[in-house]
Amino acid sequence: MITWRRPSLRRMAGSPLLDDLRAALGDAAVLTDPDLLRMHERDEADLCAAGTPLVVTRPRSTEEVVAVVRAAARHGVPVVPQGARTGLAGAANAVDGAVVLSTVAMDRILEIDPVSRIAVVQPGVVNAALAGAVREHGLWYPPDPGSWESSTIGGNVATNAGGMCCVKYGVTTEYVLGLTVVLATGEVLRTGRRTAKGVAGYDLTRLFVGSEGTLGVITEITVSLRPAPAESLTLVAVFGSTAAAGTAVAGIAERGLSPSLLELLDRVHLAAIEAYRPMGLRTDAQALLLAAVDTGSRAAEDLARIAEVCEAAGADEVYAATDAAEAAALLQARRLAHPAMEKFAAGAFPGGNGGLVIDDVAVPRGSLAALLDGVARIAAECAVPIGVVGHAGDGNMHPNIVVDRADPASVERGRRAFDEIMRLGLELGGTCTGEHGVGLLKRDWLAREIGPVGVRVHQAIKAALDPDGLFNPGKML
Amino acid sequence: MITWRRPSLRRMAGSPLLDDLRAALGDAAVLTDPDLLRMHERDEADLCAAGTPLVVTRPRSTEEVVAVVRAAARHGVPVVPQGARTGLAGAANAVDGAVVLSTVAMDRILEIDPVSRIAVVQPGVVNAALAGAVREHGLWYPPDPGSWESSTIGGNVATNAGGMCCVKYGVTTEYVLGLTVVLATGEVLRTGRRTAKGVAGYDLTRLFVGSEGTLGVITEITVSLRPAPAESLTLVAVFGSTAAAGTAVAGIAERGLSPSLLELLDRVHLAAIEAYRPMGLRTDAQALLLAAVDTGSRAAEDLARIAEVCEAAGADEVYAATDAAEAAALLQARRLAHPAMEKFAAGAFPGGNGGLVIDDVAVPRGSLAALLDGVARIAAECAVPIGVVGHAGDGNMHPNIVVDRADPASVERGRRAFDEIMRLGLELGGTCTGEHGVGLLKRDWLAREIGPVGVRVHQAIKAALDPDGLFNPGKML
Repeated sequence: MITWRRPSLRRMAGSPLLDDLRAALGDAAVLTDPDLLRMHERDEADLCAAGTPLVVTRPRSTEEVVAVVRAAARHGVPVVPQGARTGLAGAANAVDGAVVLSTVAMDRILEIDPVSRIAVVQPGVVNAALAGAVREHGLWYPPDPGSWESSTIGGNVATNAGGMCCVKYGVTTEYVLGLTVVLATGEVLRTGRRTAKGVAGYDLTRLFVGSEGTLGVITEITVSLRPAPAESLTLVAVFGSTAAAGTAVAGIAERGLSPSLLELLDRVHLAAIEAYRPMGLRTDAQALLLAAVDTGSRAAEDLARIAEVCEAAGADEVYAATDAAEAAALLQARRLAHPAMEKFAAGAFPGGNGGLVIDDVAVPRGSLAALLDGVARIAAECAVPIGVVGHAGDGNMHPNIVVDRADPASVERGRRAFDEIMRLGLELGGTCTGEHGVGLLKRDWLAREIGPVGVRVHQAIKAALDPDGLFNPGKML
Repeated sequence: MITWRRPSLRRMAGSPLLDDLRAALGDAAVLTDPDLLRMHERDEADLCAAGTPLVVTRPRSTEEVVAVVRAAARHGVPVVPQGARTGLAGAANAVDGAVVLSTVAMDRILEIDPVSRIAVVQPGVVNAALAGAVREHGLWYPPDPGSWESSTIGGNVATNAGGMCCVKYGVTTEYVLGLTVVLATGEVLRTGRRTAKGVAGYDLTRLFVGSEGTLGVITEITVSLRPAPAESLTLVAVFGSTAAAGTAVAGIAERGLSPSLLELLDRVHLAAIEAYRPMGLRTDAQALLLAAVDTGSRAAEDLARIAEVCEAAGADEVYAATDAAEAAALLQARRLAHPAMEKFAAGAFPGGNGGLVIDDVAVPRGSLAALLDGVARIAAECAVPIGVVGHAGDGNMHPNIVVDRADPASVERGRRAFDEIMRLGLELGGTCTGEHGVGLLKRDWLAREIGPVGVRVHQAIKAALDPDGLFNPGKML
């Protein structure tokens, strides 16, 4: 291994591509340290292949991104864009010998305009940093993926990230007005606008949003902002079955209510969170709904109507948070679902090799109960523990499958459950990914969902913008 | 003329393309009557070229659209999709010898689902028909272009139509979840989803929204719906200068207020409306702002804050509508702006040859006052009357230029004013079209706005999806 690595490194150190990159960016922004290369191999997705990049670059401007893209194109080496690598579909995974283009050094908020309610940012700005900066102007950047304290706006845009507020306020794409993108030719494309409305040409902005780095490198983002919302009121409803919780969600929509948050935690997650950080959650419940409303002076009335619907759907208990601190604690419990479940999975098997396969499926709201029932059936059939958590109000669930990595049979059963959940989601009129994206993890399921005509159109657009397959090869398609 | 037309018609009657179309659709859906052909030459845009189609087809289903597209492709004849032809940019104008594909016979609402809050419609459904049908379920389809009582959802989607409610609720594209599209190959593409969220692949749905029939023929549309909004409260503010009204609009945004409607009418429009249908509007004012809020029990407070901002910006008078009837009358006055201005223009010159060139420009909200000032300056410099009306809250204005069609010098001055307004809009960081689209009217200005790289990307996408230029040739690009 050592004898292989040394000459390889020496060769790389003197490679014309690295020379070009160093000349353009300076040595400090061109990383070839093997530990750093390994660190940039993958995002947080499971079950996905990853390779070792040749180099990690950290350009600081659109011009430097152009230099990286031009150099890579000249040498025929693929470019893999990366943000904070918090993705859950492998879309940021490197391939062997690639140039990783990390946006972390492009982390400046360039403008906040409270009258036009827009901000202009570089892609490496962390979601929480933007949210905090606009809050000082009484403004709000709503998209709040689970990773919001570490993930970047560039990554959020590339994956069209969702979050908890989406049920009322929509996902990332609703907030992207315009982009600067470096194309495979090295040309700089400016899409979109700074205005509230605009219909000048094809909606290229939204073609790039969610394209997972396969069409170009986003180097500047104009987002729209909202006024800060009114304070919210929160309730918890505890159910004896997940299907009853699903029925409540459908009823809330049917009654014309628009909660600002409507999340579901199942029994597995409740137990995991309570074990991870005890806070008195009802671990005897089969499902818990967490709902919030931010309708100002109408909020108490709206919350009461949601409570009514939950009771009519068979909730064992419904209680409102008595104050903001209790509401924040409940929200925090929801935010702990992921680390708590990781810890639960790690300890689920002797030897400590337990792990989590995180799935992501969305169905029309009316089919949520059927999805939850179906996941329970699949867990039993495949003999794997599956916990379900997610954005119930959007019909967007994360079935989290617990497998023993030391046991190939357990991993195989987990994969089978994963596929069965995808199949069920599509049967229910849903999609194979509500917010995590396709990446490497769901290429086959994307193809099934969109069919051969859809695949051909995707390929045609990819070929039109990146004919040589320079950007993020193997992802999505 | 007659001797030319007769043999030509005879030739068409026996053309293999017409035979194919009649075989597929039946005679009644394949129209060649010269009067009907002339009726389908153009939409409502001015200054745009139009040709006489060979035939107007009225398919009733996706399958029949496939048959029309396949037949036209086989015979190398272009296809021009048309809805109600209420567009204002010439995007629906026919070219000589084309197959017009009218969607008016595809006018069925296929599904309304109150739990998932979606509707599925054929493209020929009139906006008002959908709005009315979902209202019976307590639901709301917000996009409300001025043409909403006659324009079709298909046309609204193809042009990404705006309207008055967009200032709070967004434009058409925010409500389109999925599409069925017939491609130039005759293949049927299904894009998007029925779920609230979804990130499976490129956002093809929004690539087709606003593409003005240049990429495919939309044959089915899944839209998302909202619960019906709370009743709104309305106020009127009268200003001694348009710039003061612009300042008020910026102040309303800056104070974090989100009116559900924020429209501006200038002196020219106030006089035109009062002449068209007298209703006691203050015709001595330079500008009138019409604002509404639908924030439920907070509405009165929000309206008072808007009134305060208007007064601080120098409003001469601010008054709230005393009841729903008065509010409706004010809204009706705004909706009459277009016909009233048409009538005013028609009578503005001796001989009755006056006409209106309708423009559409959007700037960042903070630049609205500068836009209004600039338009007044351009009107003086070009010596043409220009009235301004529009969606002030979005920074989206319609400068309406009055010209004497019998006087080439007047028309020329009008064109110059039109171009100067476009130039000003771009200088102010705006877009050449906020909601009317590019069509034929603004191809040159689109190219200026998006630049050569943007044009090349547009061309590459057009070529990827419609390599032979079958669909709507000459539009947008």
